[in-house]
Amino acid sequence: MTGLPKLRTFVAEVAQIVDAKLDESATLARLAPKLKELVTADDWLPDAYAAADGKAYRQYLLYADPLDRFSIVSFVWGPGQGTPIHDHRVWGLVGVLRGEELSVSYARQPDGSLRPGPTERLAKGTVAAVSPDIGDIHAISNGLADKSSISIHVYGGNIGRIHRSVFDATTGAEHEFVSGYSNEFVPNLWV
Amino acid sequence: MTGLPKLRTFVAEVAQIVDAKLDESATLARLAPKLKELVTADDWLPDAYAAADGKAYRQYLLYADPLDRFSIVSFVWGPGQGTPIHDHRVWGLVGVLRGEELSVSYARQPDGSLRPGPTERLAKGTVAAVSPDIGDIHAISNGLADKSSISIHVYGGNIGRIHRSVFDATTGAEHEFVSGYSNEFVPNLWV
Ligand SMILES: [Fe+3]
Ligand SMILES: [Fe+3]
Ligand SMILES: [Mg+2]
Repeated sequence: MTGLPKLRTFVAEVAQIVDAKLDESATLARLAPKLKELVTADDWLPDAYAAADGKAYRQYLLYADPLDRFSIVSFVWGPGQGTPIHDHRVWGLVGVLRGEELSVSYARQPDGSLRPGPTERLAKGTVAAVSPDIGDIHAISNGLADKSSISIHVYGGNIGRIHRSVFDATTGAEHEFVSGYSNEFVPNLWV
Repeated sequence: MTGLPKLRTFVAEVAQIVDAKLDESATLARLAPKLKELVTADDWLPDAYAAADGKAYRQYLLYADPLDRFSIVSFVWGPGQGTPIHDHRVWGLVGVLRGEELSVSYARQPDGSLRPGPTERLAKGTVAAVSPDIGDIHAISNGLADKSSISIHVYGGNIGRIHRSVFDATTGAEHEFVSGYSNEFVPNLWV
């Protein structure tokens, strides 16, 4: 695991930035360039956290703060895979490490339905943000038909434990979910 | 892994106590009863972190703070196994989870040699402390001839990364070492 020092450094940087207890926009402004740097070179993610599943996308926890102040997750989409429409309830940054992703944001309409914005193509190296303040409802899918795509996400909470929602695209109906994680073990960053 | 909630709760308790930035004695006074509670019921440690090695004792990282403020480690001694005489350079608490351990403390003499104190027998459920202030040089070994013994240690730093010393019992000669860890993966506390 020659790449672990990069992840270890990133986790420490996120911990320091979150410890500073800045407001959301200042936090994201400091984190975004660190995440961009992390996803610019695709030479550090252990294979165990880059493996696609045949059936659905995977969400591998890489690190979570024990007091739920932040979490760092590797999302892996196989060909044709994508998330349901969902929200987060905390700030989140998405950095594309491998491949390419499609992102659609949704806005609640007065009649309760969800209006999709344009489909954004997130190329490798792109960093994008979500949050209740800046727009929290979206769906992400693999932009490649023949390969996996991977993005590294940072959240201002333990995303796998948060009670949040998935939405029906047609009716806008909301259902509570808790995403959990796909992995029983996380990397030891200090071996 | 039905026992993970206990470890998750303990990690969060340690994080909160360390975050309070109390002095060493107040920190240890708060931590010791939490560790005692953790090691009183031996029903939570995943097997991967309880496995003895045929050749030498194992030190499995369970959790480390990314800013090196604390770490939690499972030490496993097979029959006949023990540590060299060593120091820590930070505070540490030892809680015996399984079996029984023998602990010998050492004091530097004016002639440079190390004088051993009495051999203490640490029964299951015992919590003991070390630190540069209260006595930092010791050796621990398995008190059982036919079974593994396991203790859970908490340190006021990332113990696997600290440059510290092992000592020759006869001459007192000191050699720098960095212990590292035995495991590539740590538990995901949130699955
Ligand atoms: Fe999302
Ligand atoms: Fe020790
Ligand atoms: Mg922490």
